[in-house]
Amino acid sequence: MAKKVITFGEVMMRLSPPGYSKFSQATSFELAYGGGEANVAISLAYLGVKATHVTRFPNNSLGKAATQFLRMHWLNTEHVYYGGDKLGMYFLEKGAVHRPSEVIYEREGSAFSQIKPEMIDWEDVLKDADWFHWTGITPAISEGAAQCCLDAIKTANKMGIKVSGDINSRDNMWKYGKTMQEVMPELVKNCDIVITSSYGIHQILGLVEPDDKFRYSAKRLMDAYPRIEKVVGKTRKSISASHNQIQGKMWNGKEYNKTEMLNITHVIDRVGTGDAFASGLIYGLMHYDDDKALDFASAACALKHTVPGDVNLVSLDNVISLMGGDTSGAIRR
Amino acid sequence: MAKKVITFGEVMMRLSPPGYSKFSQATSFELAYGGGEANVAISLAYLGVKATHVTRFPNNSLGKAATQFLRMHWLNTEHVYYGGDKLGMYFLEKGAVHRPSEVIYEREGSAFSQIKPEMIDWEDVLKDADWFHWTGITPAISEGAAQCCLDAIKTANKMGIKVSGDINSRDNMWKYGKTMQEVMPELVKNCDIVITSSYGIHQILGLVEPDDKFRYSAKRLMDAYPRIEKVVGKTRKSISASHNQIQGKMWNGKEYNKTEMLNITHVIDRVGTGDAFASGLIYGLMHYDDDKALDFASAACALKHTVPGDVNLVSLDNVISLMGGDTSGAIRR
Amino acid sequence: MAKKVITFGEVMMRLSPPGYSKFSQATSFELAYGGGEANVAISLAYLGVKATHVTRFPNNSLGKAATQFLRMHWLNTEHVYYGGDKLGMYFLEKGAVHRPSEVIYEREGSAFSQIKPEMIDWEDVLKDADWFHWTGITPAISEGAAQCCLDAIKTANKMGIKVSGDINSRDNMWKYGKTMQEVMPELVKNCDIVITSSYGIHQILGLVEPDDKFRYSAKRLMDAYPRIEKVVGKTRKSISASHNQIQGKMWNGKEYNKTEMLNITHVIDRVGTGDAFASGLIYGLMHYDDDKALDFASAACALKHTVPGDVNLVSLDNVISLMGGDTSGAIRR
Amino acid sequence: MAKKVITFGEVMMRLSPPGYSKFSQATSFELAYGGGEANVAISLAYLGVKATHVTRFPNNSLGKAATQFLRMHWLNTEHVYYGGDKLGMYFLEKGAVHRPSEVIYEREGSAFSQIKPEMIDWEDVLKDADWFHWTGITPAISEGAAQCCLDAIKTANKMGIKVSGDINSRDNMWKYGKTMQEVMPELVKNCDIVITSSYGIHQILGLVEPDDKFRYSAKRLMDAYPRIEKVVGKTRKSISASHNQIQGKMWNGKEYNKTEMLNITHVIDRVGTGDAFASGLIYGLMHYDDDKALDFASAACALKHTVPGDVNLVSLDNVISLMGGDTSGAIRR
Amino acid sequence: MAKKVITFGEVMMRLSPPGYSKFSQATSFELAYGGGEANVAISLAYLGVKATHVTRFPNNSLGKAATQFLRMHWLNTEHVYYGGDKLGMYFLEKGAVHRPSEVIYEREGSAFSQIKPEMIDWEDVLKDADWFHWTGITPAISEGAAQCCLDAIKTANKMGIKVSGDINSRDNMWKYGKTMQEVMPELVKNCDIVITSSYGIHQILGLVEPDDKFRYSAKRLMDAYPRIEKVVGKTRKSISASHNQIQGKMWNGKEYNKTEMLNITHVIDRVGTGDAFASGLIYGLMHYDDDKALDFASAACALKHTVPGDVNLVSLDNVISLMGGDTSGAIRR
Amino acid sequence: MAKKVITFGEVMMRLSPPGYSKFSQATSFELAYGGGEANVAISLAYLGVKATHVTRFPNNSLGKAATQFLRMHWLNTEHVYYGGDKLGMYFLEKGAVHRPSEVIYEREGSAFSQIKPEMIDWEDVLKDADWFHWTGITPAISEGAAQCCLDAIKTANKMGIKVSGDINSRDNMWKYGKTMQEVMPELVKNCDIVITSSYGIHQILGLVEPDDKFRYSAKRLMDAYPRIEKVVGKTRKSISASHNQIQGKMWNGKEYNKTEMLNITHVIDRVGTGDAFASGLIYGLMHYDDDKALDFASAACALKHTVPGDVNLVSLDNVISLMGGDTSGAIRR
Repeated sequence: MAKKVITFGEVMMRLSPPGYSKFSQATSFELAYGGGEANVAISLAYLGVKATHVTRFPNNSLGKAATQFLRMHWLNTEHVYYGGDKLGMYFLEKGAVHRPSEVIYEREGSAFSQIKPEMIDWEDVLKDADWFHWTGITPAISEGAAQCCLDAIKTANKMGIKVSGDINSRDNMWKYGKTMQEVMPELVKNCDIVITSSYGIHQILGLVEPDDKFRYSAKRLMDAYPRIEKVVGKTRKSISASHNQIQGKMWNGKEYNKTEMLNITHVIDRVGTGDAFASGLIYGLMHYDDDKALDFASAACALKHTVPGDVNLVSLDNVISLMGGDTSGAIRR
Repeated sequence: MAKKVITFGEVMMRLSPPGYSKFSQATSFELAYGGGEANVAISLAYLGVKATHVTRFPNNSLGKAATQFLRMHWLNTEHVYYGGDKLGMYFLEKGAVHRPSEVIYEREGSAFSQIKPEMIDWEDVLKDADWFHWTGITPAISEGAAQCCLDAIKTANKMGIKVSGDINSRDNMWKYGKTMQEVMPELVKNCDIVITSSYGIHQILGLVEPDDKFRYSAKRLMDAYPRIEKVVGKTRKSISASHNQIQGKMWNGKEYNKTEMLNITHVIDRVGTGDAFASGLIYGLMHYDDDKALDFASAACALKHTVPGDVNLVSLDNVISLMGGDTSGAIRR
Repeated sequence: MAKKVITFGEVMMRLSPPGYSKFSQATSFELAYGGGEANVAISLAYLGVKATHVTRFPNNSLGKAATQFLRMHWLNTEHVYYGGDKLGMYFLEKGAVHRPSEVIYEREGSAFSQIKPEMIDWEDVLKDADWFHWTGITPAISEGAAQCCLDAIKTANKMGIKVSGDINSRDNMWKYGKTMQEVMPELVKNCDIVITSSYGIHQILGLVEPDDKFRYSAKRLMDAYPRIEKVVGKTRKSISASHNQIQGKMWNGKEYNKTEMLNITHVIDRVGTGDAFASGLIYGLMHYDDDKALDFASAACALKHTVPGDVNLVSLDNVISLMGGDTSGAIRR
Repeated sequence: MAKKVITFGEVMMRLSPPGYSKFSQATSFELAYGGGEANVAISLAYLGVKATHVTRFPNNSLGKAATQFLRMHWLNTEHVYYGGDKLGMYFLEKGAVHRPSEVIYEREGSAFSQIKPEMIDWEDVLKDADWFHWTGITPAISEGAAQCCLDAIKTANKMGIKVSGDINSRDNMWKYGKTMQEVMPELVKNCDIVITSSYGIHQILGLVEPDDKFRYSAKRLMDAYPRIEKVVGKTRKSISASHNQIQGKMWNGKEYNKTEMLNITHVIDRVGTGDAFASGLIYGLMHYDDDKALDFASAACALKHTVPGDVNLVSLDNVISLMGGDTSGAIRR
Repeated sequence: MAKKVITFGEVMMRLSPPGYSKFSQATSFELAYGGGEANVAISLAYLGVKATHVTRFPNNSLGKAATQFLRMHWLNTEHVYYGGDKLGMYFLEKGAVHRPSEVIYEREGSAFSQIKPEMIDWEDVLKDADWFHWTGITPAISEGAAQCCLDAIKTANKMGIKVSGDINSRDNMWKYGKTMQEVMPELVKNCDIVITSSYGIHQILGLVEPDDKFRYSAKRLMDAYPRIEKVVGKTRKSISASHNQIQGKMWNGKEYNKTEMLNITHVIDRVGTGDAFASGLIYGLMHYDDDKALDFASAACALKHTVPGDVNLVSLDNVISLMGGDTSGAIRR
Repeated sequence: MAKKVITFGEVMMRLSPPGYSKFSQATSFELAYGGGEANVAISLAYLGVKATHVTRFPNNSLGKAATQFLRMHWLNTEHVYYGGDKLGMYFLEKGAVHRPSEVIYEREGSAFSQIKPEMIDWEDVLKDADWFHWTGITPAISEGAAQCCLDAIKTANKMGIKVSGDINSRDNMWKYGKTMQEVMPELVKNCDIVITSSYGIHQILGLVEPDDKFRYSAKRLMDAYPRIEKVVGKTRKSISASHNQIQGKMWNGKEYNKTEMLNITHVIDRVGTGDAFASGLIYGLMHYDDDKALDFASAACALKHTVPGDVNLVSLDNVISLMGGDTSGAIRR
């Protein structure tokens, strides 16, 4: 029977000039929607998992259109709440070779940032779920969002639902009066699976002498927070905006494992590739052993680089085929 | 020698689904920029007047792109100020026949709304100008915007520059703690030309027994504020979203004048038609007598209904030809 | 509490040259999906009704995309069945003024046409439903489709669920060996509400001396099939492909009622306007008396003419406003 | 057996901003090709006539693309000659309601304008042909073009092939040193059928006291040039750029005939409607009596107003149906 | 004098989401047409060869549009036959890097599949021709198509016209009751030139102990079918969907020859590259010795990877330049 | 304070089929504008330099639109002169891998080519300027253009304004009766900075025994024309149309310097990359020492390959970052 995953976080309208046009040339924007956690949910839905995304949109045609995007991509949207004034937005100018992509956010004061704990009955939301996933972006948005996230994690803990957190917060996101170090530890220590980098671990633990090696950082995180079963990361080598390399890595308390490096020679859309990795990891851990789960995550991540938009729309077949070593991309008829 | 006009007000990014698509169908947005006062300035520039628009944008690629739009359409942008976080936006779904167009604003907290009087040296801005134009939207945006507007009007008065105001504010726009009735009278009474409706006059004067007839309302406004030379309005008959009729009307203290009704049987874009009227009126009063000025304003307004976007891009020839009674739209080779 | 409606029928991929281009000019097609019954379901969903559409698609990316279209437009798709080879398609070239629109179907052998009664458990599908709607297209597609439709109607009858049928079948659609006259009467006589024309009634009853007046035909249909409570139709006056007039009419056994003629002076997309009428009627009969229900149906039908695609995406507010006589289409901010 | 028509004239690249955008807004152009005589040939080809267009293009990818356009629209292109430097072009900004369409030509020095009589063996070109058609634009382009046109007409006369000329030249087109009055009479007097206006007749005949009535002008033309069998014209009433009315008229030496006025309430593309009239007339005269031929011409002309591009792509069925009085534009399935 | 080639086979409508969008994201399709044999004919036409394609389309606007595509790309279409119900179609989602392209066919019951031997008079079709080309797809479509193909080959044999066959049939295409092994040998053994792979040879000959080396397989095919003069193939190395390598190889009964490997580092459209190879081979064998012919075929094949659509639209200059070793792609002004 | 640069030269309309489509497939053109010198001015404007471009356009909507393009991209256009008939144009078909881009010019008889020395008051134009830049294209266009260019250079010399010339003229451009060798030396010898290649130097000096090494050629040029301070060039290695490598080189009379080779693995638009190099060099020489100036020029050049259109729209930050060795193109949030 299909597994069921719950995700929680903001979904933004994504506006991008067509092709490789710059903002200074655009006379139209391509319109999509995205957000780290919803990206994970949708990718899982395309892999065959039942996925519900919990979020909040303004109660107008734009909030409805954002919901429609989630529905179109197979999500259950019964826990989308409506209210507030504004849909968070981001603008993406796509780079190439030596020219970086540029992202501009307009998300302050969004309907999601005004979310309050009393708006969500997590026991109801998490009923029948197998997994809850959150990211480090959510607690950075507002005190309400952080509190909702903590409530969700604790409720999931109580209900015996696995919790994974993707801890990739940037310091400059925290603008509502609390610091990452004040808020994150309580959230991270109740996770079963943590996806992060050495740098992320050092930020959370407030380490003064950080360790560059992922495996040692991971060990220190698991020492600090014993509930955590696995710490998972990926190495991205950005040869250029058009050519990236990806390698997954995992410390599960016993073994340190790394995947083959995957070589994405013609990047189509790099946004959301971390979320594709997270979704691949969740799917993998649900269906395979740790090694294959990591391979699955890396393959999913690599494939996302070829899909326009925030979301990994590839099929289970595509991921399994790449995971099995077929990098040929040979046409399917 | 070409006249010089200064306008002041917010410019928003305008995003609209292509053609007659609804928000619930859109996968791209057409991108333009607009704002009542800048619309007036640009239309005047296409008629051959030198026009400078004063506004404030965030100091990022989007704020630059908005400036580029003004430059492309011939405005002087040396008094565009940069700062703040956010570009005001509006979303426009175009209606047809019985289906209304729908507009959604996301302009709270915009760079313009955070404008402060000390940011603008009006004596410098208004140097060599012949005319200053503002609208009732600006004082509704924020206390700072209202104060800047008042400063501009008073400086213009002092410098002997004509002032026109387009008083079409809606009550539900006033959210920063002051009411229209507290703020507007001081602004209106220093104008030379006022463009408004009976309803607008009643709002400003706080009349309890309003008068439906424009000419009597206009007279009362000029009685109350003796600086005002002319009160100008237009009647719009909305037969449907696709078919409007327009008629200009003016009370100049001596005569009440109305134009022929112009019949816009195939509306292409109704947004900004009021601004086209205002720009036509300003051009008209600069170059013709009152009667012809009103004809020019009506013709400019009618033509705007056929131009996509907020702004009236038609040529002086086009307006003069329609003002002269040629409604045939016959092809020019 | 929101009502729940079930619809059943084929959904086709709709491919149309952009704008007013002809097939002989097209280098791209706009892509949408549509089918009489799903059109009704989606329109009802936009009005706030819970709607489930039952259909069958090939189990490939195209069948999935068709399902995604239904989900995006708020339908419950848990009773979409997958199998067979092919997605039905239709090509639409949009006409204007004296130039007719042209429709080409490629639906033979579609997944839906191969549907079999044993694939659907109607008691399960219709659980908690308030209404079942079908159209005369479905029994014309294949023996299996006709049988499924009959099963649905009979199950609905048994479960006390209202049944409406839109009987607008064309003789040239019946290609699988049975005639309209052999199949339709059994389906029609178990309906509570029938939407049709005088001509449709004559076809079903096999009348040799047809009556041009809708009210008399309607009476004859209700005499023949006493379960029917109301017979509803509309008059379309096609002044040109770009200008249509619409008037609803209903015989409810006691009164004959007609709505005001609505004048659609600038048709955007005429396809699916009959389905919009049907969905408006269903909504109306659920929430109003017969007279207002008919007004609601006519208003919904008129509004559809301004929405691109097969489906009426307008809001409840839009319909109520037009039903109340506001034909101005004045902009909503 | 299908009739065969030969046409001769320049074909230009046509570049137009999308939709109703103005030149000052365009970031792309829609690309098509057109020219009065080729427009006639293509329209005839869509009606089932064999049509060959004779012209000259530069021997590069643009000249090839222009040829491909003619081939795509069913013309025989074996008499397209290659050479010279440049493809003639025109830019079209589409107007609406009171806003005129604007056309800018860049055709000087085109490959066609450099055509020379020795490049064309008219006896070979006209072999098996039933009809030769030219327009007044061709002799205005260059001395070589005028001479080729005269050669064609005289050869056709000799070979017993009907000749029709559409005499709608504008004085401001004649830039190569000769005037219309010097060149045209020789061309016109060898025609069998002349399509023109009262004004055109006066220009050709150099009348000082012109006659407003078409029938009298036509008579004078036929008196002057006895070879002419019929003089045909149309009245266009341009209510606006979006609404035109069309009426055909013909003097055949015996009777003066006018068609019903056709009411084109929603003009899509007005360019080439005169050519559609000419093609309709040619088809009509080949297949019907004079009265019906004129009806056919008017119907073809009216239908062209709804087809984007220069060329009338409608089918014989469409024209016959409108000619028969069906103005409903009702959808064809 | 230009050579003349005849090809025979189905042409399908090709619908593909724009850019790298997936089916699950598409709201429009790019529209083109393609089919292995017509692709060969068009490529030859761009190289300067006279080419006629023989096929069958439904007698409606879609069948006409398909014919227009062939005409636009310079084919002689006088042997396109009309009838039947349906135009074959295929849907193409373009992959990148590790993500495979996906093709979905909807061609069953197409007008072409219903073709019958009596519809084509091959002696008339092949009159004046120098070459006949077919592919292994055609006999897999239907018994009628297979029979027509055999008739064509035998007529060509009789008339002394060279016959080339591209034998790349897939087993899962054969659905009409006959197997590849029953039908193909008769067709292949009457060819002069066979394009195929080792695998293809083994399928045709029903070899139980296949030989991996192309040269030995080729020899066995020529031993079995002595009419065959040359067996030609290519090696494709699919490094990824975005990066392919191509190498031509030929056994002509005396020598085994291979070309340099061509490195297509940025694939734009991989579909039809095999057909480009075949057309290059035919052109090459018509104009060069075997070695240069193979170089020409490889260069044509490599260039096709950079052209959107099924068809190789490059010029003779382009192929000759690459054949001569210029891989720089340096801009031509 | 921002530096001020003046450039002089023709600006053409640029029309290109979308994406990688060939001319033979296009049904629309992307519209932009470009010209070597204006490209330099715009790139400098994006780097923060004040830039004025001097040119001439026809006095119609197309000439205005070209001016609007310059204004939108931040240029001062007060010295755009209007007159003449025609806007120069070029058509660009974008190549990939082994397929070359193809450029077709239609610029003969353009408004710019008819420019006359008396139209420009160079003392007025160059007032307050720091730099004047021209290219070898301008003197090839017409005698008037060459004379204007010489006037500008001499006036700049007199006013103490630096002069840079980009000498990349092709022999086949010189069509008005003078040869490159007659005209160029006078222009080149009054430059302070010359950008060229060994080949360019040999052409100008009329060397019979050219030297392949750039440094020796440069030395000879500086020996011949002692005013020249630096001779600058770049090596382009065109691995394919999609993959280029760029290296800057400079002889400043004392040292010969070369930059690192920059590897542009995914070319988006190669047109205007030489102009980007020139603008980078000018900016660099204004703000850095020679070595860093050359690095800046190379980085600017490399980045242009990723920007659609003629013009380098990247920011100062982007160039500095690449100049500093960051080739990662990592996303900026």
